[in-house]
Amino acid sequence: MSVHEECGVFGVISDKPFDAAGMCCRGLYALQHRGQESCGIVVNDDGLFVSRKGLGLVSEVFAPDVLSSFPPGTMAAAHTRYGTTGSSSLANCQPIEVNHLKGRMAVAHNGNLSNAAELRSALELNGAIFHTSSDTETIAYIVTRERLGAPSIEEALSRAMDTLEGAYSLVLMSPQKLICARDPLGFRPLCFGRTEGGVYAVASESCALKAVGAEFIRDVEPGEILVFGRDGVVSRREHCGKAPKKLCVFEYIYFARPDSVIDGRSVHAARLEAGRILARAYPASADLVIGVPDSGLDAALGYSRESGIPYGIGLIKNKYVGRTFIAPEGRSDMVSIKLSAVEEAVKGRSIVLIDDSVVRGTTGGRIVSLLRQAGAKEIHMRVSAPPFLFPCYYGTDVDSDADLIARRHTPDEIARMMGADSLAFLPVESLCALSASRDCCSACFDGRYPLKVPADTRKNRFEQKLSERDK
Amino acid sequence: MSVHEECGVFGVISDKPFDAAGMCCRGLYALQHRGQESCGIVVNDDGLFVSRKGLGLVSEVFAPDVLSSFPPGTMAAAHTRYGTTGSSSLANCQPIEVNHLKGRMAVAHNGNLSNAAELRSALELNGAIFHTSSDTETIAYIVTRERLGAPSIEEALSRAMDTLEGAYSLVLMSPQKLICARDPLGFRPLCFGRTEGGVYAVASESCALKAVGAEFIRDVEPGEILVFGRDGVVSRREHCGKAPKKLCVFEYIYFARPDSVIDGRSVHAARLEAGRILARAYPASADLVIGVPDSGLDAALGYSRESGIPYGIGLIKNKYVGRTFIAPEGRSDMVSIKLSAVEEAVKGRSIVLIDDSVVRGTTGGRIVSLLRQAGAKEIHMRVSAPPFLFPCYYGTDVDSDADLIARRHTPDEIARMMGADSLAFLPVESLCALSASRDCCSACFDGRYPLKVPADTRKNRFEQKLSERDK
Amino acid sequence: MSVHEECGVFGVISDKPFDAAGMCCRGLYALQHRGQESCGIVVNDDGLFVSRKGLGLVSEVFAPDVLSSFPPGTMAAAHTRYGTTGSSSLANCQPIEVNHLKGRMAVAHNGNLSNAAELRSALELNGAIFHTSSDTETIAYIVTRERLGAPSIEEALSRAMDTLEGAYSLVLMSPQKLICARDPLGFRPLCFGRTEGGVYAVASESCALKAVGAEFIRDVEPGEILVFGRDGVVSRREHCGKAPKKLCVFEYIYFARPDSVIDGRSVHAARLEAGRILARAYPASADLVIGVPDSGLDAALGYSRESGIPYGIGLIKNKYVGRTFIAPEGRSDMVSIKLSAVEEAVKGRSIVLIDDSVVRGTTGGRIVSLLRQAGAKEIHMRVSAPPFLFPCYYGTDVDSDADLIARRHTPDEIARMMGADSLAFLPVESLCALSASRDCCSACFDGRYPLKVPADTRKNRFEQKLSERDK
Amino acid sequence: MSVHEECGVFGVISDKPFDAAGMCCRGLYALQHRGQESCGIVVNDDGLFVSRKGLGLVSEVFAPDVLSSFPPGTMAAAHTRYGTTGSSSLANCQPIEVNHLKGRMAVAHNGNLSNAAELRSALELNGAIFHTSSDTETIAYIVTRERLGAPSIEEALSRAMDTLEGAYSLVLMSPQKLICARDPLGFRPLCFGRTEGGVYAVASESCALKAVGAEFIRDVEPGEILVFGRDGVVSRREHCGKAPKKLCVFEYIYFARPDSVIDGRSVHAARLEAGRILARAYPASADLVIGVPDSGLDAALGYSRESGIPYGIGLIKNKYVGRTFIAPEGRSDMVSIKLSAVEEAVKGRSIVLIDDSVVRGTTGGRIVSLLRQAGAKEIHMRVSAPPFLFPCYYGTDVDSDADLIARRHTPDEIARMMGADSLAFLPVESLCALSASRDCCSACFDGRYPLKVPADTRKNRFEQKLSERDK
Repeated sequence: MSVHEECGVFGVISDKPFDAAGMCCRGLYALQHRGQESCGIVVNDDGLFVSRKGLGLVSEVFAPDVLSSFPPGTMAAAHTRYGTTGSSSLANCQPIEVNHLKGRMAVAHNGNLSNAAELRSALELNGAIFHTSSDTETIAYIVTRERLGAPSIEEALSRAMDTLEGAYSLVLMSPQKLICARDPLGFRPLCFGRTEGGVYAVASESCALKAVGAEFIRDVEPGEILVFGRDGVVSRREHCGKAPKKLCVFEYIYFARPDSVIDGRSVHAARLEAGRILARAYPASADLVIGVPDSGLDAALGYSRESGIPYGIGLIKNKYVGRTFIAPEGRSDMVSIKLSAVEEAVKGRSIVLIDDSVVRGTTGGRIVSLLRQAGAKEIHMRVSAPPFLFPCYYGTDVDSDADLIARRHTPDEIARMMGADSLAFLPVESLCALSASRDCCSACFDGRYPLKVPADTRKNRFEQKLSERDK
Repeated sequence: MSVHEECGVFGVISDKPFDAAGMCCRGLYALQHRGQESCGIVVNDDGLFVSRKGLGLVSEVFAPDVLSSFPPGTMAAAHTRYGTTGSSSLANCQPIEVNHLKGRMAVAHNGNLSNAAELRSALELNGAIFHTSSDTETIAYIVTRERLGAPSIEEALSRAMDTLEGAYSLVLMSPQKLICARDPLGFRPLCFGRTEGGVYAVASESCALKAVGAEFIRDVEPGEILVFGRDGVVSRREHCGKAPKKLCVFEYIYFARPDSVIDGRSVHAARLEAGRILARAYPASADLVIGVPDSGLDAALGYSRESGIPYGIGLIKNKYVGRTFIAPEGRSDMVSIKLSAVEEAVKGRSIVLIDDSVVRGTTGGRIVSLLRQAGAKEIHMRVSAPPFLFPCYYGTDVDSDADLIARRHTPDEIARMMGADSLAFLPVESLCALSASRDCCSACFDGRYPLKVPADTRKNRFEQKLSERDK
Repeated sequence: MSVHEECGVFGVISDKPFDAAGMCCRGLYALQHRGQESCGIVVNDDGLFVSRKGLGLVSEVFAPDVLSSFPPGTMAAAHTRYGTTGSSSLANCQPIEVNHLKGRMAVAHNGNLSNAAELRSALELNGAIFHTSSDTETIAYIVTRERLGAPSIEEALSRAMDTLEGAYSLVLMSPQKLICARDPLGFRPLCFGRTEGGVYAVASESCALKAVGAEFIRDVEPGEILVFGRDGVVSRREHCGKAPKKLCVFEYIYFARPDSVIDGRSVHAARLEAGRILARAYPASADLVIGVPDSGLDAALGYSRESGIPYGIGLIKNKYVGRTFIAPEGRSDMVSIKLSAVEEAVKGRSIVLIDDSVVRGTTGGRIVSLLRQAGAKEIHMRVSAPPFLFPCYYGTDVDSDADLIARRHTPDEIARMMGADSLAFLPVESLCALSASRDCCSACFDGRYPLKVPADTRKNRFEQKLSERDK
Repeated sequence: MSVHEECGVFGVISDKPFDAAGMCCRGLYALQHRGQESCGIVVNDDGLFVSRKGLGLVSEVFAPDVLSSFPPGTMAAAHTRYGTTGSSSLANCQPIEVNHLKGRMAVAHNGNLSNAAELRSALELNGAIFHTSSDTETIAYIVTRERLGAPSIEEALSRAMDTLEGAYSLVLMSPQKLICARDPLGFRPLCFGRTEGGVYAVASESCALKAVGAEFIRDVEPGEILVFGRDGVVSRREHCGKAPKKLCVFEYIYFARPDSVIDGRSVHAARLEAGRILARAYPASADLVIGVPDSGLDAALGYSRESGIPYGIGLIKNKYVGRTFIAPEGRSDMVSIKLSAVEEAVKGRSIVLIDDSVVRGTTGGRIVSLLRQAGAKEIHMRVSAPPFLFPCYYGTDVDSDADLIARRHTPDEIARMMGADSLAFLPVESLCALSASRDCCSACFDGRYPLKVPADTRKNRFEQKLSERDK
């Protein structure tokens, strides 16, 4: 599907030098699903920052010789990013590093500011220059400006948070400290843990803590700032509790890895539950339930368990298809390269097919067609998310040009267009059941935005404006 | 696991020029699981051979600019290879291309000759020089020598087959013909199909036919030679029916893709059946059946269905871990990077864990340990293959230095070593149930070799001998 | 030798779109001798900036596929840079691009600010963040801040020049204009010309104008700002004539290409003259005059012509030795790989050997030794520059750790240490004869600095300070 | 110019392991001018061959990490090659390595067999297969076939030499021996030397011996086989003295480096002499003599000395222009990118311009034009070689499609076409003066072939025939 979030963040700190880059690399491997465009690691070697960033997967950017070129360090910050292609975006690789009066700072960021345009204009009016078009640089600027009058970097960050609006889970590194923070509504996940060897690790998802051998301690709370430094771990909570928690529900449905636990709720369990809800709300008479791999499998299992219809393996995903694969002319279907049907499983059978979302409907239509060719008798599509109807301003990127099929067609119409025998979406009113707190942001489905909606919300708003000026 | 086969072959031919390289590339994507070390495509552009080969995955070797540098052609041969690492093995990339009296020839090969050493010695005594250490060059030599006295390349191949012993599925390309052949015992799979546009495609597995939009026609029969050329498709059957079919049973258990159908038997169905057999032979009292992804999932589903124990998703595989990942010092466990347990699913539960094989036992031990850390109460391991006890001379590569645990320990001992509560292997006498013909090669499990066992069977036998001579 | 300047700048503009990137590429080829670490081109495609930058030679960074990925544009700015190694310096590639209130700006810079530290501190106190450690970002900042109150970018640049001290030859590009400027003392060269097709080109040296088919119009004057835009070429001279011209004399001796003409003086002629001066001041009784290729050849010819001693070809330079060549252990002599003596020419002869500088004396010693091994009878070394005695703050980089041999030894001692029969330097009082205006900066030889000497002059002054703060 | 020879060979051997790859790399750097398409090194590590080969310059193929991946060895063979472009030619990289009955063999070859087509046909009739289109593989085959009946590899080589006709300077490496040989007419150079540390080195040119610190011992004689092994150095002379020495005169004029000495004659001295001959035969009234860098400089100096006209530096070569540079559309002149005139030197002057050859006349015409633009009053071109009139079958590659201007035009006509005031070639009857022995091959100038002319002499003769057969 074509919905993307931008980024995973990671950080580690110990009281003595260790292979911080290697640990970050393992953490990034576990967060790779959150972004595949570029990645970066900045190691803090006694105040000296050593960084390597690049376009590509963790395995491509951090080849063994690159990884071994890092010195040991007492801490490190790391990032993996989703974004548009093109070498020009090299400048947008994170963590970004900036030099300022009080020293160097590295910033890794997951999320989107909803008041980015206003903040940026104000900074520019005050003489700021920007090297990138990302919100991360805006955050770095504001922290730096506050730093001029603040006694510490964490105090500067706290003051900056008075100004920042929207979604942000941050890892900041200064010469002496590692700091992480989560926006007051907690749109994006962030948690931390500790290894037996005494290394603290901060990560977007708990699966990355496990990957580095760290035991999960707890989620960073919405609004909380955690400072890891000489004095151990200090929690600052002045931004906590001022707003209801609004974790993005799409983390459970699509973004996060099923083995992660976010804000007290297992992603696997949330997806099983979505399947169960669908089975109750939209039962089907069928021989087999199959999921679209990988993110539809858990919900398929939930549907199967609730309905009693046997679970099957009916679609195989080719894990070797590179990001650069170009479909042959006249056949735009990546789908037939990436997925194939198991004829033996589906032939002559009525199928319940679980997918995690429907955006334009083209991918779903091709999957239905693959199953028909393999002999499926009936196909009842069940979608483990409600239909996308509203834009997201907090870091979820539904292609702006996307022809959102659900805005113009009923489920029955969509089923016909796809060639499915029936189609149903997860009821929007049941979304609260997916999170532990029964409270989350589902604005993209119901339009109930927890914050003021920005005036100009185009993804490339900064880039576009730039060429219009100074002509 | 550490068992590998060497290679997938692919070929296409039409009566007019088309994007033969692009179609081969899609075919190779579908065969990538059969070998990830190197790959190659040779396009026949009106008698001129244009080739690109390289170390790496299809997505790495055939980047868009490389793929677009091929001319259109009326046919092409392609190969994906498993092998040892190191740039020196560039010479071993296939298809190999040779020039001889009657023109150029490209050869792609899957399998291993059991009389390779004798054949090679005889050729060398007659003045042959070898550029590689692969059996493929030996095959090319013998075909070429026969070609001197034969009226056609297919006749030369047929005569060569009198001499060749062992496993081989071949795709040969001459300036005017595409030819494929399968050894008389049919150790390795080979099939062909046709697209709506009239392109014939030959492939190691049927999943690659689907990937290029070709409809499966049938398997190439053991001993059969198929000649695709000006006169359409001609089948030569002089080597057919002289020996019982002996398809490698490990194709069903591990090598092939579940959506492939080989010699009339769906791989998915064979694996389901292996799970069912295990459930009947070695029942367990448990709450959940989980498979080790990806190749253990189908058998896990079979075990679940037969036993009635619910199927679960308990292990997540990280598909982004590169082949070059190097585990940090002191922690050789790729396992914890590649796999993680879904705590929510396994915590407090008794688990039946299905894996496809046990070689040295270390991987299995680590998976058991992951599940224990995630809170699994009991772990009953069931292996969907019998224990490896004998070397394979037909293309399956169990590391020669492998410490085959089953040769020295009973299942109970292995269970204890791994930390599992019980462990059982697929009964060797039930193997016949996996294939459609109820006849297959299972020599690595039972030592019943269908052909004479070679004297020197070391993998690097040619390379080692070379440095001992002419001193 | 180990003396380096940092950078060559280039820019082009026309009133209609053209292959601006291709023309920049040819210009950079001609300026490659001024810097080989990295290079970059930014094309202005109707206000949209498209840039490609990278570490390496122009031929490496601008491979045909990269070059052809640029769109046509009406203008472009380009840069080639000398600098330290390491991928981390990717951030320092120029032209740098910044976004600000009034639009985007690209800046390419050759030189060094002598008040960079003060300027940077002041900016940081005002909330600025820096992404790089280069003076170019400081210049961009100051121009941007002035831009807030200035009616045009050229006015902002002019106001910025009130603040900037030191050496700078600049090419600036805004969405609508190409602007170039030279510092009021004119330390670094800068000139412009025009092609028959109406494209204006700006370049560090006139050889780059020739390379793109542009006819030299004139040098940019010290202090002059030239604005190329809709209104043609506008010269602003408010900073002109306030200080004596102080072109770096080392441009004539070493940096510039012999076919360039700088401030009215041919570099070739200046070097011939240096050779003639040496011949008059330090005659030698010898059979042959040879130069160390490439930069010693012109002076050798001058010495030969003045003295009447025949000119010879006695040393061959290997042009294929890559920058990454690593000398074998225990033999640090790049010299014997890069240079070799023509035994036929030097055997049994007394030689006058002309080199362009002596820094540590090791290279010279090895060349003397090469010639001795080839049979030279006597070697009289003549250096076409005075001895380095003082640090340069205007862009010439004598390694800070360099063991400047001339500070501790007399020419006779140096001759003995190198194994030469005699050695003499260009008299410092004759330097004025090399330039047309008889006035130039020769501070590195005589300590007469035309501007206030900065307090902290370490090359890495910013990087070092950064890790000391905020601990 | 567009005349090329194919290849430089190099080899080293010691009685104990050393950094053989590093020494080869330095040797190849010194031979890089003989071929820039590809290069390779094969190290003999106690009978095990470790090789690295690739397309590109030595500095590109043997990056530090590649070079350091070689083990130490007691010997190594190396090669640098000129050839056509395209990744498909990777197979043609040398040294080629073949495996045969008596062990492994590496072969590096410089030259061209004039009976290659006959030899290849005969081998193919006997069942040989060829992987490449190069003569080197033919040589390897014939040596291998002889090896079957010969007591040693050197005896096999000697017997093979009864069959081989044409030009070949060879380095062969077996598990135990390094062998070099030169064809009986000695078309291509070959020499050997010894380092202080006891390493023997064999090289195409003496400049490569110097580069590795080896003292030149002597040229390998025409027809001589030298065997370096356990018994020291053994010379076999059974093919010596049967024919007059026929060194290719173009080695002196163009191919070899001026600091090399070939068959007793310094290349520098030969070129000086060519200049002197031109000065006597074709005097000119001029102010300055300039050479086209780099290979015209020595002859220019000779002309200057003989005529008394001052030597000047009038053309500068840009050493940074990569091989992949693509001239902008509509301007095919690489010349203006690679060369530039020194206006100061040539303006208003009458010039004698020395180039080493004229093939199609286009390059010369552009150089004349560059000088005119720079203000040269008169240009008298003198070419330090006779006109090319006949094809070479011994390894010199004048482009087969070359429009050899001298075959259709008189020198006066060529001068007019180029825009020169006069033009003269080196008299063909004075060629003998260039070599020490006064005897050399000058067939490309005078058509006097020392061996039978082959029937089919097309460069791609093998490749073309291949696609015609087996249709």
